[in-house]
Amino acid sequence: MQQLLNEILDEVRPLLGQGKVADYIPALASVPANQLGIAVYGVDGQLYSAGDADTAFSIQSISKVFALVQAIQHSGEAIWQRLGHEPSGQPFNSLVQLELERGKPRNPFINAGALVISDLNQSRFAAPALSMRDFVRRLSGNPQLLSDAKVADSEYQHRARNAAMAYLMQSFGNFDNEVEAVLRSYFHNCALAMSCVDLARACAFLANQGVCPHGGEQVLTAQQTRQVNAVMATSGLYDEAGSFAYRVGLPGKSGVGGGLVAVVPGRFVVCVWSPELNASGNSLAGMAALEKLSERIGWSVF
Amino acid sequence: MQQLLNEILDEVRPLLGQGKVADYIPALASVPANQLGIAVYGVDGQLYSAGDADTAFSIQSISKVFALVQAIQHSGEAIWQRLGHEPSGQPFNSLVQLELERGKPRNPFINAGALVISDLNQSRFAAPALSMRDFVRRLSGNPQLLSDAKVADSEYQHRARNAAMAYLMQSFGNFDNEVEAVLRSYFHNCALAMSCVDLARACAFLANQGVCPHGGEQVLTAQQTRQVNAVMATSGLYDEAGSFAYRVGLPGKSGVGGGLVAVVPGRFVVCVWSPELNASGNSLAGMAALEKLSERIGWSVF
Amino acid sequence: MQQLLNEILDEVRPLLGQGKVADYIPALASVPANQLGIAVYGVDGQLYSAGDADTAFSIQSISKVFALVQAIQHSGEAIWQRLGHEPSGQPFNSLVQLELERGKPRNPFINAGALVISDLNQSRFAAPALSMRDFVRRLSGNPQLLSDAKVADSEYQHRARNAAMAYLMQSFGNFDNEVEAVLRSYFHNCALAMSCVDLARACAFLANQGVCPHGGEQVLTAQQTRQVNAVMATSGLYDEAGSFAYRVGLPGKSGVGGGLVAVVPGRFVVCVWSPELNASGNSLAGMAALEKLSERIGWSVF
Amino acid sequence: MQQLLNEILDEVRPLLGQGKVADYIPALASVPANQLGIAVYGVDGQLYSAGDADTAFSIQSISKVFALVQAIQHSGEAIWQRLGHEPSGQPFNSLVQLELERGKPRNPFINAGALVISDLNQSRFAAPALSMRDFVRRLSGNPQLLSDAKVADSEYQHRARNAAMAYLMQSFGNFDNEVEAVLRSYFHNCALAMSCVDLARACAFLANQGVCPHGGEQVLTAQQTRQVNAVMATSGLYDEAGSFAYRVGLPGKSGVGGGLVAVVPGRFVVCVWSPELNASGNSLAGMAALEKLSERIGWSVF
Repeated sequence: MQQLLNEILDEVRPLLGQGKVADYIPALASVPANQLGIAVYGVDGQLYSAGDADTAFSIQSISKVFALVQAIQHSGEAIWQRLGHEPSGQPFNSLVQLELERGKPRNPFINAGALVISDLNQSRFAAPALSMRDFVRRLSGNPQLLSDAKVADSEYQHRARNAAMAYLMQSFGNFDNEVEAVLRSYFHNCALAMSCVDLARACAFLANQGVCPHGGEQVLTAQQTRQVNAVMATSGLYDEAGSFAYRVGLPGKSGVGGGLVAVVPGRFVVCVWSPELNASGNSLAGMAALEKLSERIGWSVF
Repeated sequence: MQQLLNEILDEVRPLLGQGKVADYIPALASVPANQLGIAVYGVDGQLYSAGDADTAFSIQSISKVFALVQAIQHSGEAIWQRLGHEPSGQPFNSLVQLELERGKPRNPFINAGALVISDLNQSRFAAPALSMRDFVRRLSGNPQLLSDAKVADSEYQHRARNAAMAYLMQSFGNFDNEVEAVLRSYFHNCALAMSCVDLARACAFLANQGVCPHGGEQVLTAQQTRQVNAVMATSGLYDEAGSFAYRVGLPGKSGVGGGLVAVVPGRFVVCVWSPELNASGNSLAGMAALEKLSERIGWSVF
Repeated sequence: MQQLLNEILDEVRPLLGQGKVADYIPALASVPANQLGIAVYGVDGQLYSAGDADTAFSIQSISKVFALVQAIQHSGEAIWQRLGHEPSGQPFNSLVQLELERGKPRNPFINAGALVISDLNQSRFAAPALSMRDFVRRLSGNPQLLSDAKVADSEYQHRARNAAMAYLMQSFGNFDNEVEAVLRSYFHNCALAMSCVDLARACAFLANQGVCPHGGEQVLTAQQTRQVNAVMATSGLYDEAGSFAYRVGLPGKSGVGGGLVAVVPGRFVVCVWSPELNASGNSLAGMAALEKLSERIGWSVF
Repeated sequence: MQQLLNEILDEVRPLLGQGKVADYIPALASVPANQLGIAVYGVDGQLYSAGDADTAFSIQSISKVFALVQAIQHSGEAIWQRLGHEPSGQPFNSLVQLELERGKPRNPFINAGALVISDLNQSRFAAPALSMRDFVRRLSGNPQLLSDAKVADSEYQHRARNAAMAYLMQSFGNFDNEVEAVLRSYFHNCALAMSCVDLARACAFLANQGVCPHGGEQVLTAQQTRQVNAVMATSGLYDEAGSFAYRVGLPGKSGVGGGLVAVVPGRFVVCVWSPELNASGNSLAGMAALEKLSERIGWSVF
């Protein structure tokens, strides 16, 4: 496996320079583009990694998985009264669909849905950003994890579109807390800085029927775990979800920081990272690496 | 397995009467509602069935899978220049998305995409409806299979919306043949009459890396098979694709005739049938049966 | 004329009870429904009125006319870089169109457009709400006019949809000031309390080539006045603008407070008021009264 | 007036070469671009003209006015059960709005609405294209008028988008006749070849309370005439209707052949023609000429 990871990074490295680092906030735009890392963590606790696998990056939308898991932990199936689990067929931040469907977001991985999940967590936790930080520290086994305040502030300054979505949902009666407060928590979660190794370990329970392989914690039930994976499979990669299923064949979730997590049920969690994005906002080299890896090992669930 | 199938039919039978038989054409509206069948066919050739598993019904949109497979056989990856493989996030027959995306359908399982596939097959086959009939006869091993001309004619009389879509695509330069001719072929395919047993056998290659277990024919390559399954998993059930992944966790395809096919990669193909539909146009009892079956045996790929 | 006004009020009075008072904020919902007034003010300074013509009501969207006039006064044609003057073909508060057209509102009378106008005025005036109040006091010749703080606060509490629009425009770079501050000014303008007589006098310059008949002030040039009337004619009544042109044939502007102003170029301004609204959000009895009046006197410009 | 027309043509002639002749069908694309004509016809029967005012051109969408008038003649207010008279806020051939509003077109001047009007006329006339031809011959006093069969055929070959709209309306139950037959009639009407003088005379009843000044025929009642003018004022120029009201201030109707008719109620009908179009599909030089003419004489109804 170790050798395979090295080979694959060598194969995709030529793609560096062909994508575009997220530049909608300065804090992300300044990340050096030329980085590439991968970590594979097995349900048996075995860890393999290559490249910049220990460099922390902004996890951004990957945090939506952790937020969803928190919401399922405290509210279970009830969360689906507030949002759906259908793919959206729209770019990740479109308001058109949200208005036509009267403020009920399609799924927890488009921004509107993630804001509803944050609203649910805001109602439950006294300090939602700290709860999240502690949660991922525990899941990853890394007690040093931090949210980058500079990134969070920068996101908040550019909150206009997310604020528009939150207010639109409020106008339909689907938002309980102060919009500004929820946005603060949401951006803090997005600004969590984690490495490929951190993320692979933190998501390992998704490949292990809900149980964290290192700590032994039952994070979700086996059924809930399959359900989260199912939502990742149909909606995890914005408007490339179908393409990811077609090419990689695994549940996955990406972030504009260039991170990409994929779950091989019963076996592994993989995390790839490279800051440059393709036209759909997913890591260009990361997608290529995952595609090769899945094909080489026959990981597709289909 | 046999006993399990009997049990599950007993459990879901109380749902009969709670759905609504498709009534947009008289030929479908007249099907007796009170029917329920299931067939499970293994890659080892083993067949299990229960209820009305040998009664032929109109396969309708399930024919889109066979049409897609034919198109991949003759054109391979080139078909994706004409349509996508992303979920649509819209009811299955919406023109809004088709216009906004300039005549390129989202995937081969919404009507617009299936019409493009039919257009591709029309360009390739001298008699597309006969080619399809012979193809499913071979795949199912049932040389008696027929398309119901009365159903096909009735569909053609009610072709307005499909005609609108085909002409809209033509206006964007994404339709090569005469609209009326393609519609005729398309409705002939939809009107194929097959039983649960026929369909389970005909789709078995999807669970067997592209090889038909009974005939041994290599229908698709292993990779193409995974890809078809992936498209079924993200787009096979109209606007319930996400829900199907969440509840059942398998690639699947439904039809308004009440049929529902699901693939357990490497193991089985299941076909359930019950004519009454839920609000999303999928078999009400069929969905429930598949959900129970998947949960009971732990079939979810996630 | 006086007799005609009395007659017409008698004819439409039976409609009272068939509409629905705006109830999205408590301050408006509590207005007694059973009121009806009309005022006709000539460019010669002659005033006719009937019914509750001296009762002040919340002018709501009629304030958008005054705000537009202020913006034209200080910025002229330059305002059309920020918004259009085309009818919208959409309910007055839809975000769909605003997103598809990348944050540039269709016209100054849909909410999004009025918010852009308020944003322009916010940039120009130190105290926009006071500037507006003084402006309408001068135009109407009534120095007692006030904005109802209770109504303005209530609107602000229910700002979600307007906030969503403002933030959406900000996300497209089409909003310069703090959203919350502009909303405050905007709601203060909407909450101005004026009677039919006040409004007919305040709008009289629109029938008089831009000159206020009583004060003699040149509010707009003759050409600008025709242009404002043109925008009212095509976009003044939400999604009933075409119907108003068809039935009444005059430039007009309505508000959810039940007020309705119409301009007979070169001759009169009419203001009708009755709190109950029709399905499109325009005064039910007001529309009927204007239709009868226009037909009886042959006022249609067409 | 004669001198003014000459002056205005001189002023706008430099615009020739800056627009783009309609090229979606070869028969229109081959029209020499460098032409410009104008005719003004008074309700007193006085005719003024300049430039290429006697050259026949394809009237295209201007025929929608005549078709609407025919439909009002035989069906009166009942036509509004099949379509609206609200501006559309969308490009003239969009299907999005048509689907969202369940097959009921916004107004008779977008293509979908004109197709519904053609469907109404198809139900009424044995030979709709001949009825229309005879109607405009009578209105214009020119018994030689013909529809250009080559243009009509060419349009029919490129009917895809119009066919899509007609079938979509049929799918909503808002289309009574065979789609192909109605399209044939519709394209025949569009292909009528008329000069500026023909059109100014043929539309003169719209400025004269429904009475044809030369023949004396009462084409519509005075009220119906105002109503047709009102619909032209709010919806006559595709997505430039608001701009036309703002700049010219008259009811008007344009066609992609480069013709443009405007009504000065009680006084004149003007027809300008120049084949090159602006980005909204309206005659570039024609718009400029009308704007100057209206401004110079103070024709705006506002």
